[in-house]
Amino acid sequence: MTTILNQHEDYHQAQDAYGFPLIIKQLLNRARIVSRHQTISYADKLTYTYAEFFKRINRLANVLKNMGLKQGDMVAVMDWDSHRYLEAYFAVPMSGMILQTVNVRLSEDKVLYTINHAKPKALLLNAEFAPMIKNHQFDAPSIEKVIWFDDEDAHVAELPSYVDGIYEDLLSSASDEFDFPDFDENTIATTFYTSGTTGNPKGVFFTHRQIVLQILASMASTALNAEGQGVRYTDVYMPMTPMFHVHAWCVPYWATLIGLKQIYPGRYLANKLVDLIEEHNVTLSHGVPTILQMLITEMNQRGGKFNGLKISLGGSKLNESLAKRAYECGIEFMCGFGMSESCPTLSRSIFDDKQKAMSLEEQINYRSLSGSPILLVNMELWDENGRKQPFDGEATGELVVRAPWLTQSYFKDHDAGNELWRGGWMHTQDIACITPDGTLKIVDRLKDVIKSGGEWISSIEIERILSLHPSVAEIAVIGIPDERWGERPVALITLKPDHTNTTAEDILAIGHQAVEKGHLPKYGVPSDIKFVKEMPKTSVGKLDKKVMRQMYSQNLF
Amino acid sequence: MTTILNQHEDYHQAQDAYGFPLIIKQLLNRARIVSRHQTISYADKLTYTYAEFFKRINRLANVLKNMGLKQGDMVAVMDWDSHRYLEAYFAVPMSGMILQTVNVRLSEDKVLYTINHAKPKALLLNAEFAPMIKNHQFDAPSIEKVIWFDDEDAHVAELPSYVDGIYEDLLSSASDEFDFPDFDENTIATTFYTSGTTGNPKGVFFTHRQIVLQILASMASTALNAEGQGVRYTDVYMPMTPMFHVHAWCVPYWATLIGLKQIYPGRYLANKLVDLIEEHNVTLSHGVPTILQMLITEMNQRGGKFNGLKISLGGSKLNESLAKRAYECGIEFMCGFGMSESCPTLSRSIFDDKQKAMSLEEQINYRSLSGSPILLVNMELWDENGRKQPFDGEATGELVVRAPWLTQSYFKDHDAGNELWRGGWMHTQDIACITPDGTLKIVDRLKDVIKSGGEWISSIEIERILSLHPSVAEIAVIGIPDERWGERPVALITLKPDHTNTTAEDILAIGHQAVEKGHLPKYGVPSDIKFVKEMPKTSVGKLDKKVMRQMYSQNLF
Repeated sequence: MTTILNQHEDYHQAQDAYGFPLIIKQLLNRARIVSRHQTISYADKLTYTYAEFFKRINRLANVLKNMGLKQGDMVAVMDWDSHRYLEAYFAVPMSGMILQTVNVRLSEDKVLYTINHAKPKALLLNAEFAPMIKNHQFDAPSIEKVIWFDDEDAHVAELPSYVDGIYEDLLSSASDEFDFPDFDENTIATTFYTSGTTGNPKGVFFTHRQIVLQILASMASTALNAEGQGVRYTDVYMPMTPMFHVHAWCVPYWATLIGLKQIYPGRYLANKLVDLIEEHNVTLSHGVPTILQMLITEMNQRGGKFNGLKISLGGSKLNESLAKRAYECGIEFMCGFGMSESCPTLSRSIFDDKQKAMSLEEQINYRSLSGSPILLVNMELWDENGRKQPFDGEATGELVVRAPWLTQSYFKDHDAGNELWRGGWMHTQDIACITPDGTLKIVDRLKDVIKSGGEWISSIEIERILSLHPSVAEIAVIGIPDERWGERPVALITLKPDHTNTTAEDILAIGHQAVEKGHLPKYGVPSDIKFVKEMPKTSVGKLDKKVMRQMYSQNLF
Repeated sequence: MTTILNQHEDYHQAQDAYGFPLIIKQLLNRARIVSRHQTISYADKLTYTYAEFFKRINRLANVLKNMGLKQGDMVAVMDWDSHRYLEAYFAVPMSGMILQTVNVRLSEDKVLYTINHAKPKALLLNAEFAPMIKNHQFDAPSIEKVIWFDDEDAHVAELPSYVDGIYEDLLSSASDEFDFPDFDENTIATTFYTSGTTGNPKGVFFTHRQIVLQILASMASTALNAEGQGVRYTDVYMPMTPMFHVHAWCVPYWATLIGLKQIYPGRYLANKLVDLIEEHNVTLSHGVPTILQMLITEMNQRGGKFNGLKISLGGSKLNESLAKRAYECGIEFMCGFGMSESCPTLSRSIFDDKQKAMSLEEQINYRSLSGSPILLVNMELWDENGRKQPFDGEATGELVVRAPWLTQSYFKDHDAGNELWRGGWMHTQDIACITPDGTLKIVDRLKDVIKSGGEWISSIEIERILSLHPSVAEIAVIGIPDERWGERPVALITLKPDHTNTTAEDILAIGHQAVEKGHLPKYGVPSDIKFVKEMPKTSVGKLDKKVMRQMYSQNLF
């Protein structure tokens, strides 16, 4: 990077010219002028206006300052999706502090690991998660200040001694005026931990600039979609990806930037989510396929339909049978691709004229792919030797990316960071192909790829085919060591409640048929089928193939 | 501005991490993957694919390099809207050079003034404008290289001696590979001159970062609009604001970023514009009210209608009678506010649920206002003493703004730059009020405001009222010096062809009625009405009130 001209005297900044750093406080400029009367709700407990929200951000900033916290200090949050979380999304980084969004669905030891690795000075703690941090002075010693909240008034009487104040009390007694400073846009705003499917969780971190740019590009890419699949000034937003997980894909930030009506649902309970969607006419959300399944099951029980609710899916591959059910249930779903390291969105389904001409089958197939790169994103496919592969819909390679919002390393782990960025591109560890018109198809996780008899097999491809058997509720294909072939695929399957008579042979018959029709190589038919009651999943609802492989090797299925 | 944390060792960038400067070449990342088969057309002369466009950008960069031009050199363009202009929009700044877009509609001496003030080293010259630069070695001595193009082959035989090559010949013989470098995003990308309604034209300049951010925010703000008024992946784009004028509002950049089908119309001739709109099903454009009027008149003559063509209007206030005609002619118009100094867009009409509930009259009134601030923009209203005024729809003040894309000074004119930025906000010199829901209403130009008997009168308000007389084609109200009242309003009017019998009394009757009804203060009724054949306008079609005042004082009407 070289500076060419910005210091040339002809182009000098005027004395008082405002350079406009891309910092999170700027996201509120428009909403402060346009959306003062718009509302934000917390489940069925609370509704207030943006005007009130702005004041509460100021109050929270004053609370943190009055506690002696300073720019550069880290503030952790342990909560379900709430208005409080949204307040922290703004007040903490706007104060120049770093927001740590703690993944509360990890095991207790992993939660403590992430806290003790990040070393936050303060913690905003939902009473429900108090047991996780145990005796925090011993178990999470970096934490000097704990702010407590509790949706059930009953708990308030039993406040632990380490609590420095109750969230609402502290806010009430703080001033509602705060002059948020300008600072360098490359200041770190947030940190959180990857869910750790491989080894210990790794910390990623994002600057103010990165978050602002992810918001603009990701939102604009969605807004450009045709009717029914875009985002509009009229949308009503509710997250169904946890706010601890990659800033709920940054959508709470864009919702606030646009000035949308927002609903925060608390803990995800299927009946409450559907209640809120119906009560507030929620039109815009996002989540992993597991959440989609929850919603559909609940709505099917009620005998109703969603009215074109737009849900962006990510996190894991949507299988076509779930896609079909979503479609039938009145959900406008679209897929995307991203990861913790990428803030997260890199690609999304786009909707232009082509989709209108598609049959239902083609639509569902298209929507289940990973879309095309969002604005500004650059992608390449590299083979094992770093050679660039063509975008012809056939050639596969590791997807490597460049975008203005990628974690620049791992927190306190430079070796892993250098590995992530080798060759100047961020390595996704996903094997993909890209069609001539730019649609991304994730073929497999690099580390999940099964190599049998010297040939790669896509476990996703096998899952896609076998999931067509009408008895299959959920399927995961893993590679297990094999003396003869190196690795062989094995399928774990949960059956639908009234299909328990289905046998492994029934399922495999589809595999053999696919071989006969040329859709699957012969060595792609699994060597073993295990019927399981529940699939091992990570804290954010992804299939946990690492755990599956361990359990399989120990005969635990 | 202080750096807080980006140097902290825990957050070090990985060795090979790519920092992603916001430079113009990044706008092509997505289009290179997704839109290779999309097309770009030049009038009825030429159509090629984006794949070809990318190659031609590389060729043009090689041509400039082979001519000895270097990073930091300025390249001027004199052309109507063409594919060549679009190629220069990308190739010149992507090479680290500065693009000067010469306003070819200025008078010859003003054109030479802007060239000799900016001092470009090279010029891409449409044969049609060759007379303007005369003997360039004497009249525009900074220009060392001239690249010539000519849509009419007949002219080629008469090439002037100073021409270094013909555009197409040079491109054909240059390599179609060029490795565009990364550089600091604060490098200057473009410069051009304000149209000079007051004094000599002043140069503004924009960095790569500023242009990228204007594109993202302005495009996203439009895309969020409801159906029929948004921008979509399906749009077909044709500019009707000249590409020399504030980068045609940056829309050619966003069209390319999205990968839209694009049409460049050459010189604006009403019948050709309407031909192209119909032939290519153009859906998205923008222009000043004068262009809108041209289109409607042409379409009325053809007895047809536009099919929901979306046109963003700016540059001057849309009057309601023209708005009504646009509506009846099938044009979905929306207004915005911006200026050369602001790259340009600062506000736009938004379309959400509120507009749906409006009557036709209310809709037209709403759409004729200046919309609300686009994403990231901050606005204040200041009174004469710099005191902030409330957004209550009543209080007025000078509109001052902050946004990530404002010229940081004037080119080689630090005093004017410091004046522009006094108090840390950019001064628009427009008097405005803002409603409680954030809609901007420009009340007057600061320097056009008429002060009669110690009271401000809005000339725009008077224009709005008198334009309701069915005979009025166009109207301009100016303030002229008056011994008794300080200033008095005077109206210049062009009448519709078949309304030439209308008298000043007929027009004034509407003004008196407005006074009686309380819509206008008594001192707002013009002291004089002049019927004129043609309104004095600036080179970009704005009413030129400075010239009007001069002509009025010299009894030239």
